[in-house]
Amino acid sequence: MQSGVYCKIFKEVSKESMSDEKKKVDNKRTIDPAALTVLDRNDGQIETAYDRYVKMQPQCNFGRTGVCCRICLQGPCRITRKSSKGICGAHGYTIVARNLVRAIAGGAGAHADHSRHMIYTISEMLEGKAPDYGIEDPDKLRRVAERLGLSVDGKDDLELLGEVLKLAEADFSKMDSKPCKWLETTVVEDRMKKFDDCNIQPRSVHTTISEVMGQTHMGVDADPVNLIFQGLKTALADYIGMHIATDLSDILFGTPQPVTTEANFGVMDPDMVNIAVHGHNPLLSEMIVRVARDMKAEAEAAGAKGIKCMGICCTGNEVLMRQGVPVLTNFLSQELPIMTGALDAMVVDVQCIMPGIRAVAECHHTRIITTMSHSKIPGSYHIEFTEDRAVEKAREVISLAIEAFKERKGKPVDIPEVKNKVTAGFSTEALLDLFAAVNPDNPIKVLTDAIESGQLRGVVLLAGCNNLRVIHDESHSTVIKGLAQNNVFLVSTGCVAGTAAKMGLMNEEAVEKYAGEGLKSFINMLNEANKDKLKEKLPLVFHMGSCVDNSRAYNLMTLMANQWGVDTPKVPYAASAPEAMSEKAISIGCWCVTLGMPTHVGVVPEVTGSALVNGIALQIAEDVYGGYFMWEEDPEKSVEKILNALDERTWKLRVHKQAAEKYETALSATW
Amino acid sequence: MQSGVYCKIFKEVSKESMSDEKKKVDNKRTIDPAALTVLDRNDGQIETAYDRYVKMQPQCNFGRTGVCCRICLQGPCRITRKSSKGICGAHGYTIVARNLVRAIAGGAGAHADHSRHMIYTISEMLEGKAPDYGIEDPDKLRRVAERLGLSVDGKDDLELLGEVLKLAEADFSKMDSKPCKWLETTVVEDRMKKFDDCNIQPRSVHTTISEVMGQTHMGVDADPVNLIFQGLKTALADYIGMHIATDLSDILFGTPQPVTTEANFGVMDPDMVNIAVHGHNPLLSEMIVRVARDMKAEAEAAGAKGIKCMGICCTGNEVLMRQGVPVLTNFLSQELPIMTGALDAMVVDVQCIMPGIRAVAECHHTRIITTMSHSKIPGSYHIEFTEDRAVEKAREVISLAIEAFKERKGKPVDIPEVKNKVTAGFSTEALLDLFAAVNPDNPIKVLTDAIESGQLRGVVLLAGCNNLRVIHDESHSTVIKGLAQNNVFLVSTGCVAGTAAKMGLMNEEAVEKYAGEGLKSFINMLNEANKDKLKEKLPLVFHMGSCVDNSRAYNLMTLMANQWGVDTPKVPYAASAPEAMSEKAISIGCWCVTLGMPTHVGVVPEVTGSALVNGIALQIAEDVYGGYFMWEEDPEKSVEKILNALDERTWKLRVHKQAAEKYETALSATW
Repeated sequence: MQSGVYCKIFKEVSKESMSDEKKKVDNKRTIDPAALTVLDRNDGQIETAYDRYVKMQPQCNFGRTGVCCRICLQGPCRITRKSSKGICGAHGYTIVARNLVRAIAGGAGAHADHSRHMIYTISEMLEGKAPDYGIEDPDKLRRVAERLGLSVDGKDDLELLGEVLKLAEADFSKMDSKPCKWLETTVVEDRMKKFDDCNIQPRSVHTTISEVMGQTHMGVDADPVNLIFQGLKTALADYIGMHIATDLSDILFGTPQPVTTEANFGVMDPDMVNIAVHGHNPLLSEMIVRVARDMKAEAEAAGAKGIKCMGICCTGNEVLMRQGVPVLTNFLSQELPIMTGALDAMVVDVQCIMPGIRAVAECHHTRIITTMSHSKIPGSYHIEFTEDRAVEKAREVISLAIEAFKERKGKPVDIPEVKNKVTAGFSTEALLDLFAAVNPDNPIKVLTDAIESGQLRGVVLLAGCNNLRVIHDESHSTVIKGLAQNNVFLVSTGCVAGTAAKMGLMNEEAVEKYAGEGLKSFINMLNEANKDKLKEKLPLVFHMGSCVDNSRAYNLMTLMANQWGVDTPKVPYAASAPEAMSEKAISIGCWCVTLGMPTHVGVVPEVTGSALVNGIALQIAEDVYGGYFMWEEDPEKSVEKILNALDERTWKLRVHKQAAEKYETALSATW
Repeated sequence: MQSGVYCKIFKEVSKESMSDEKKKVDNKRTIDPAALTVLDRNDGQIETAYDRYVKMQPQCNFGRTGVCCRICLQGPCRITRKSSKGICGAHGYTIVARNLVRAIAGGAGAHADHSRHMIYTISEMLEGKAPDYGIEDPDKLRRVAERLGLSVDGKDDLELLGEVLKLAEADFSKMDSKPCKWLETTVVEDRMKKFDDCNIQPRSVHTTISEVMGQTHMGVDADPVNLIFQGLKTALADYIGMHIATDLSDILFGTPQPVTTEANFGVMDPDMVNIAVHGHNPLLSEMIVRVARDMKAEAEAAGAKGIKCMGICCTGNEVLMRQGVPVLTNFLSQELPIMTGALDAMVVDVQCIMPGIRAVAECHHTRIITTMSHSKIPGSYHIEFTEDRAVEKAREVISLAIEAFKERKGKPVDIPEVKNKVTAGFSTEALLDLFAAVNPDNPIKVLTDAIESGQLRGVVLLAGCNNLRVIHDESHSTVIKGLAQNNVFLVSTGCVAGTAAKMGLMNEEAVEKYAGEGLKSFINMLNEANKDKLKEKLPLVFHMGSCVDNSRAYNLMTLMANQWGVDTPKVPYAASAPEAMSEKAISIGCWCVTLGMPTHVGVVPEVTGSALVNGIALQIAEDVYGGYFMWEEDPEKSVEKILNALDERTWKLRVHKQAAEKYETALSATW
């Protein structure tokens, strides 16, 4: 299992003292057995991200700690002992804060792009210009409309969708200071007061992002606290954009319900046309999956048994959640399936698509197909996906994959025999359905009762990416196992969910193997209550969707807070991104904190160059918002810290609940 | 004239071989005699930007050439021979393009912030909530409304302003793909077609900035050409935002008309309360200047002769253009007036405000007063300026300055006796008025005829900042003198205009001293034709306003293009930013190119790490848009290159005009 060049180089670079066993794994920088197999066979001949990470060492510590400023053409300015301020006189804290806030705007911008695409599509649909799309889930539409305060009676679906769309457009674009609907209607009341007090109510998604770029321009804001407040406002704008994307996706494609499939490279079938959808946006991937079912005959005519769609990253999560499409892999290992020789096409849309896939595909027959006008990779096939001809474009894409299959047919392929059963599809609605089987009158009380009784220690949202600064999938796996063993109810999104799926942590066997007694009994209670409708038993980790769907997890927290009649910072609910990588993760982390969650990040972000900014993240944030960050790269220590955060809240909750009962007051009144 | 520590250090760092004379100047890094005097006296005791620049050497060449990527938490990735791609596989060209496009978004975001503040204020005004503001220039309002296609008859001013405001808000926020009004109505028709062809029509300012942040997120666009097209779209969005700001400012505060005053440190009066307004936004500075006139009695009561307002950077340009307020200094030397001991308050709003002013003020009595909620400097006075109590807030600010004067009274001050006469105030309207005195039926023909006849070699817009990479004010001065000598009609904005004002290049003496015969005769013709209404003779360089007012200069180009019946790339009109520094300058430069100007930049931007991106800027842009960049740090060579660019166009224009006349076709038909 020793692989080639990239391991050797890394050995020279790595200075840490590690146990031999750990070193072996660290040198590979992944614990995914399928990825390891491909890397071993490759023996460093084809360059992948794993190699490039090693080559990139040592990385610049100015950038790493956030004290490099490139905001004007006099720079770069780097803060050192000799130069304790930038040329303009900006302190390190200003530079760190500005860089951070721009990163949040990057994350919000990415989610906004996703959500805006949904808005445009629905807008076209309502004008009859997107004939291949329709309303898959009218119940969700009505729930969303009612939550937004629209009257739904007597309106047909399209009319109602038009009204929802108008509100979504307003939350995206409006310039007045009225509260955004998607914030106002999804958080507890006390949070809105808090945002008013701190002046971090976003006017709209686009206005806020534009504000950031102005405020962080050379010679504007030098005050790190002020900058960070704008950053948190932007994070809330991000939350709004994300929530809109999830709501609109559910309306168009259906709200996820439990579904079972498989994950990891073993899902590829040498005799089928293997198509991976990769990126984030369901508008394309849903169409590919649907059309692939209709094009079986074409595939058979080319000598294949059929067409096998599978997913990478979050567009993979989208079609897993709604269509039960198998998971091929997560972010970091995205280049490797191409190296098996079995992948006929990788169809990509937006976000987290390594340009590196192009170079890897040059040594193989795999067609890399870009589909979005604003997301291209030079040298790749580009089939521009347009809403007015969605099915037609999907057919073009699949035809290209079939053509690639013909080239491959009869040639040997090398698919690692690794796959695991996955049960996913747990939207907030799906979770509440499970709870309702136990307590139909008040489903969420099933969860809050379990925490009050000590059966569960709390809830943790596992979210985020992969990052080569830590070992691929190792931090995720360790944190999941550690928390499960300690009876934490685990919900997950994005590439952590990808790890859980690939590594066999998202099925009933994992419950048996890793859940502590409390968690096991809780899940089994749900299994028992739902046995008539569940096809498969429940998993250890509950997959809530793609990274844009993190708002689902926050909705769960809001329900818990409302059940207890307290603000969210009192709820034993934490977030953890053990392998955070993207600006989206930074932005999500910031709204998690602003919305009241203790938030663990397993890769130290670029803020340590300023003790002040770092201190705000780790400590001061808690005083203001109740949420706070914990940086911890060691996954085992991470588990401890997350548990401590939950325990503190659970303990307080119990004590205050007892007091409230004793003195017959509301729980929130005793705090 | 040798100054202290910062010179010595710089000598060690500077490796270039220079003539002794040049070295002396280079070691100072400024040629402004007032700045030199203050720096000499300081002898390095108080740290200024000039010192910090020297300390910051050597600067990081990865950042300098654009090949450092910090867009995800796996970074920083730096492109080297060893690591020719980022960890994700991003090529150098992707990294360079992404960084560039984000910088353009930074510039657009800054201008958007400025313009949005105007929009909010007018919105409050229309609701009766900004009682201190009104419509100063109803004629401009009507001109703008008519240009936008609104019917103006029978509407009162406020009603009409409301309609203009609605259109401005739409250009800022709308999500549909209809053309933006401020673009459509201010560029020649062929340009709009070009933007359609290239798919770079912005939906709106905010939508476009948000798009950039999404498109440049990790794993989205890897295609440098595609990225740069988005960058140019953003630059057009910037143009829209800027034009709106100028139009609304003119409506609220009046369209500039010729005005004469003085510039440089000598404008401070030791016996008066000296207040510098610094930043960019006229909403505050106009109010300070007005209220200062009313508060003379308070100043006298404190023992002062009165209140002297003066300007730094572009808010200085705003009040210079409209109120004849003296120019104190431009960007780079902003810290130095504090060191004279004579400046009682520096009132700042947004953009290009060095945080360094705070530390310098700590050694002096000067009050640094920040005024905007999103632009603070820790340790400074903060008097939050609100539109509903504008006069009240201005009074607070001035009272603080008077208090500081009391502290200073009787103490020695050290004001360099350097000042120069300045004639400014040349809005497009004011220029056309001058031309109309020669040709009332077709004013712009005065300018185009002079070019056709060879009296003028063309028009150059001098715009942009200061940048310590070159010698402060030297590049500006050299380019101005070189072009003037070669009979180029010079218009200017921003900190170049600041240099021209300070260095005595913005008055009639400069015409005598530096203008070539053609330019001299042209200006004298205008002097003669306008002698009854001009109080002072015309200057060498025509000041068009703050950097946000660059759209005025483009309006002039559009008028010329329409007069000749051609698209703007055929007009002998270039832009030059000899000391560009800010992201705003990058964005403005990009729209200048997109709108058809050869654009000289005197500081090489951070794109040279990619031959492809650099090549697009320098060459390919011309094939697509007619405009292109020229990087040239040597100011004398810059003059040659700009002249060549003008000559090529003038020559073609004459040849084609002769052909058009001979064959009786339209001029545009012969191209």
